[in-house]
Amino acid sequence: MRIILVGWGVVGQSFAKIVTYRKKELAEMYGFCPRIVAIVDQKGAVLNTKGLDIEQMLFLKNEKGTISACNKDGHPYMSALEVIESVEAEVIVEVTPTNIETAEPGLSYIKNAFRTGKHVVTTNKGPLALALPALTELADHNNVYLRFSGTVGAGTPILEFAKKCLQGDKINSVRGILNGTTNYILSEMDKKNITFNVALKAAQKLGFAEADPTMDVDGYDAAAKLVIMANWIMEKKVTIKDVKIEGIRDVSSKDLEEAKKKDCTIKLIGSINENLKVEPMQISKHDPLAVDGALNAVTYVSESAGEQTIIGLGAGGMETASAVLRDILDIKQNIANKMME
Amino acid sequence: MRIILVGWGVVGQSFAKIVTYRKKELAEMYGFCPRIVAIVDQKGAVLNTKGLDIEQMLFLKNEKGTISACNKDGHPYMSALEVIESVEAEVIVEVTPTNIETAEPGLSYIKNAFRTGKHVVTTNKGPLALALPALTELADHNNVYLRFSGTVGAGTPILEFAKKCLQGDKINSVRGILNGTTNYILSEMDKKNITFNVALKAAQKLGFAEADPTMDVDGYDAAAKLVIMANWIMEKKVTIKDVKIEGIRDVSSKDLEEAKKKDCTIKLIGSINENLKVEPMQISKHDPLAVDGALNAVTYVSESAGEQTIIGLGAGGMETASAVLRDILDIKQNIANKMME
Repeated sequence: MRIILVGWGVVGQSFAKIVTYRKKELAEMYGFCPRIVAIVDQKGAVLNTKGLDIEQMLFLKNEKGTISACNKDGHPYMSALEVIESVEAEVIVEVTPTNIETAEPGLSYIKNAFRTGKHVVTTNKGPLALALPALTELADHNNVYLRFSGTVGAGTPILEFAKKCLQGDKINSVRGILNGTTNYILSEMDKKNITFNVALKAAQKLGFAEADPTMDVDGYDAAAKLVIMANWIMEKKVTIKDVKIEGIRDVSSKDLEEAKKKDCTIKLIGSINENLKVEPMQISKHDPLAVDGALNAVTYVSESAGEQTIIGLGAGGMETASAVLRDILDIKQNIANKMME
Repeated sequence: MRIILVGWGVVGQSFAKIVTYRKKELAEMYGFCPRIVAIVDQKGAVLNTKGLDIEQMLFLKNEKGTISACNKDGHPYMSALEVIESVEAEVIVEVTPTNIETAEPGLSYIKNAFRTGKHVVTTNKGPLALALPALTELADHNNVYLRFSGTVGAGTPILEFAKKCLQGDKINSVRGILNGTTNYILSEMDKKNITFNVALKAAQKLGFAEADPTMDVDGYDAAAKLVIMANWIMEKKVTIKDVKIEGIRDVSSKDLEEAKKKDCTIKLIGSINENLKVEPMQISKHDPLAVDGALNAVTYVSESAGEQTIIGLGAGGMETASAVLRDILDIKQNIANKMME
């Protein structure tokens, strides 16, 4: 299976490492023999139809700042769109940063991959939050698959759990903590009796929150994930515009004190019922969702099997890369099933 | 698909209800058209090749104490073994009570089902705890499937999560709370500062613990589940004899007080590393495993995706029945894939 890797950051590199170091195992257990035939970073591309040498690519990025500096196969300034349109491959792994306002450039990459008959695995929430219903249609129309397990819960298989573990059952509602940064901030506020601003600054210092924390603390990241879940799991055709969003900036020490009196705490909860909402809510400290630190947690309420909660880290390069691998194996299996029909 | 139901208790009845009430949905979504052609209870059997009337069977059990009292199709005193051997069907649903000492009569039912070419879905831990490696071989030899999702976590898809959600990854170790009764007792001891005996008696009064609580409080039930997980998920060929088992009878109020000082609590933890163990252990109150009440919780430690915890009710008729349905759908899909090969 030939793969084009668009984005050579932590997730892209981790993915390339997994498939390289676990080559033998993946071939034996899944008959999966990936060949990364192109990589694109911000300064250019590197192409080799026989498969690129991953060790060398990791070295080049470290030493020269771009994989396009490769003497033999490098193409400085070659754009991702050019690569997607001109290089033959079965799958595009799109791991560029999320842009929640325009979804670009990821959105164009995905659309062009579809148009040239390539399956897409992405970890980019932007295109999905803004246009998932349209992208699903476009994929169907072009007879290709779109997968995005790494966008929700990083390595924690939150989407797969709903799709694969509850066959014959029906998920009626969902609620969850979908953003690790805000959960870390709220946990610290609760534990140390500090204000939002103090907790945010500490989180930024430790690298848990970004310099511009809007995406996280104002609830947009959680809302994007909620949109992905609503489309994929509950077949709702929604985008981020359909989510009522409230962040955690206004959560006060007093709010947390009030909650504590009832053996509760405050968490930023995303929920899917008739409506989609992201908002700070009081929940019992004994609720399985009441996880601390940077964890993510989701509770599915299903018709027959009852309530189930999945908890795991919501971030991490290697973890997210393992979700990309799962998605590609899923696509491989779907193709095989289809061929046999 | 023709089904023989061995056992007409809460799980058997719940399963029959699900497939009856959700008939249309199951046919549309999964092409699944089940026909229950035989039911066996402790007093006899009822047979009908065209499929039994489930409403009538529920009524008969309530009014006459046995389904074999059916005028038209009833066979009083007909044994389960006779039915399994003589009635044509694709799947046996074996939902008789667990016997951890001899595994009977469930073990004979399963073996005879295999010998007559029938797939088996069971919720009975006895045969699996004592003989899972042998049963797996026997199923393979007879070219049939054995499934048992409901034995671990009832409706919570703990086994499926490991099998279906972590493709391409590798589970290195497992730890979990696999018994709701002991977790309820330990939670009460911790919360109310009461002794084991007081908490046990309260649990018995509320129906959370049985009159003879050995299976639960001495750790055998958790050990049986651990054996099932080790075989199914980690391909270890073990039986309950390979588990080091310690129950919760010796957990004292003082132990819990000591734990509390460290912001910890005591839980009955089953773990799979090099060895299999069930023992009371101190864990942090902030560990996702530290669930209260009758919940079950399992943490998988995988190579790439990190630690993931699944939490849900570990008991319940409808919940367990939903696991039986999932298993049958899984078998159906496996048969379909095999036919296309």
